[in-house]
Amino acid sequence: MDKLELVSCNKVFGGLQKVYSHSSSELKCKMNFSIYLPPQAEGGDVKLPLVYYLSGLTCNEQNFITKSGFQRYAAEQGVIVVGPDTSPRGVKVPGDDESWDFGVSAGFYLDAVKEPWAENYRMGSYLNKELYELILQAFSNVVDPERIGIMGHSMGGHGALVSALRNPGLYKSVSAFAPICNPSACPWGVKAFTGYLGEDKSLWAEWDATELVKKYDAPPLTLLIDQGASDKFYIEKQLLPENLVEACRSSGVPVILNLRDGYDHSYYYISTYIGEHLAFHSKILKA
Amino acid sequence: MDKLELVSCNKVFGGLQKVYSHSSSELKCKMNFSIYLPPQAEGGDVKLPLVYYLSGLTCNEQNFITKSGFQRYAAEQGVIVVGPDTSPRGVKVPGDDESWDFGVSAGFYLDAVKEPWAENYRMGSYLNKELYELILQAFSNVVDPERIGIMGHSMGGHGALVSALRNPGLYKSVSAFAPICNPSACPWGVKAFTGYLGEDKSLWAEWDATELVKKYDAPPLTLLIDQGASDKFYIEKQLLPENLVEACRSSGVPVILNLRDGYDHSYYYISTYIGEHLAFHSKILKA
Repeated sequence: MDKLELVSCNKVFGGLQKVYSHSSSELKCKMNFSIYLPPQAEGGDVKLPLVYYLSGLTCNEQNFITKSGFQRYAAEQGVIVVGPDTSPRGVKVPGDDESWDFGVSAGFYLDAVKEPWAENYRMGSYLNKELYELILQAFSNVVDPERIGIMGHSMGGHGALVSALRNPGLYKSVSAFAPICNPSACPWGVKAFTGYLGEDKSLWAEWDATELVKKYDAPPLTLLIDQGASDKFYIEKQLLPENLVEACRSSGVPVILNLRDGYDHSYYYISTYIGEHLAFHSKILKA
Repeated sequence: MDKLELVSCNKVFGGLQKVYSHSSSELKCKMNFSIYLPPQAEGGDVKLPLVYYLSGLTCNEQNFITKSGFQRYAAEQGVIVVGPDTSPRGVKVPGDDESWDFGVSAGFYLDAVKEPWAENYRMGSYLNKELYELILQAFSNVVDPERIGIMGHSMGGHGALVSALRNPGLYKSVSAFAPICNPSACPWGVKAFTGYLGEDKSLWAEWDATELVKKYDAPPLTLLIDQGASDKFYIEKQLLPENLVEACRSSGVPVILNLRDGYDHSYYYISTYIGEHLAFHSKILKA
């Protein structure tokens, strides 16, 4: 097991918000992740549900834990919440810091195949294999391995949906705030997929929630999608939730789309509805 | 009236988190402040209570509005919340950026008399006169001028206590997170008071909550003080709440000191208890 180093620990809503760093073999660099242990985790005699939260473009592990206010609801529900970083860090691939929507802090939670990205940009395997196993091992005294969910925002909403759809059974619940629902069909996604995956569109379909839903044939999973109606990126058609909903309807995958009047793409919006999302996960994971 | 320019506006918990800038005559520079208008302010046909929140060292108007999660409680209680900046900005007094605890973002909510600070560093008059009047005028359709409270954190807790004690009746309720309670007797305060006020200790006493309490003789006011027991700055005796409590007891000023086991000086701590504080203000302001 990788060695964990404690970076910070702060008491909040009766639990502990921790940040750890560890050496990732998938990404070949040192990575931070956050973990919130609610008050119910103290003592370690009860196994609790756990929800992953994947952040969006430009974020690291800090944005969510300082801005969303999720800890109040995680403490109320007795849910552990883990927040990974959004890309490899410090690996210095040429060109990795030239764009805010590609490279550093824009890993798109996929496994790159195109050079020079294929060596380090393996956020898909990092998240769904390496970190997933690491958390189960390092926190085996408090995490129930049968009750794990995933959520995310924007690029991280894409990551949450794709992770759940590609790995049936790994995540029992999934939700997303303003997710990039159909990356093959929006500017952010086309740029990222071209850069990380190349020109082969059949490979793109393996990392696109709307395409994955069309062939989903696994344990029933309800997708909860949340979208601010005044979100600039929604209006500019970077997010395309309607494409995902249409694909779900055609293939019989249950989906809920909550359109929120007047809300934008920010953490102000997320903070308003994060409690609803954690309650959604909690209800499924405790059923 | 000064002209207000809207810097940002985000919907959160059904209300609007706005930031404005304006030209300050007291500080002779452009200043930002935040204002949260809860859902109850929409339409403008009800006058609501208002609470000021003063931030601590190193902060500007952003920290509180992005990290504390107060909007949920302000929306529940129907309270407007205003957050000023912590010092003049962009005035370039020689040496103003050499320390994190003096000069820029460290105005201590007082009126400096020593050169070169006396010209711009007039946060006391800015807050309690200029901004106070500006808010009443610019938001007269939603603010009840008879129901105004004040709170703050660390240096801002000092600012809240001093503002309430120096200006009887201006603020009907007051509370503070980890306030600098006795600046004349702690390193932060001695540095700031020496720099802004000079060597005359009788002048220091006019901006020191513990000293002001000793001679407070005005409308009854209960001081609510909150303090994390694991707060590094509390342990290092920068905050000294016990001095304030002793002064209150000797002079008959009601005080509540809540010591919070395991909590530190951060916004994680504030986010945990900001709801209790807004409920405290709301109860007094709606009585």
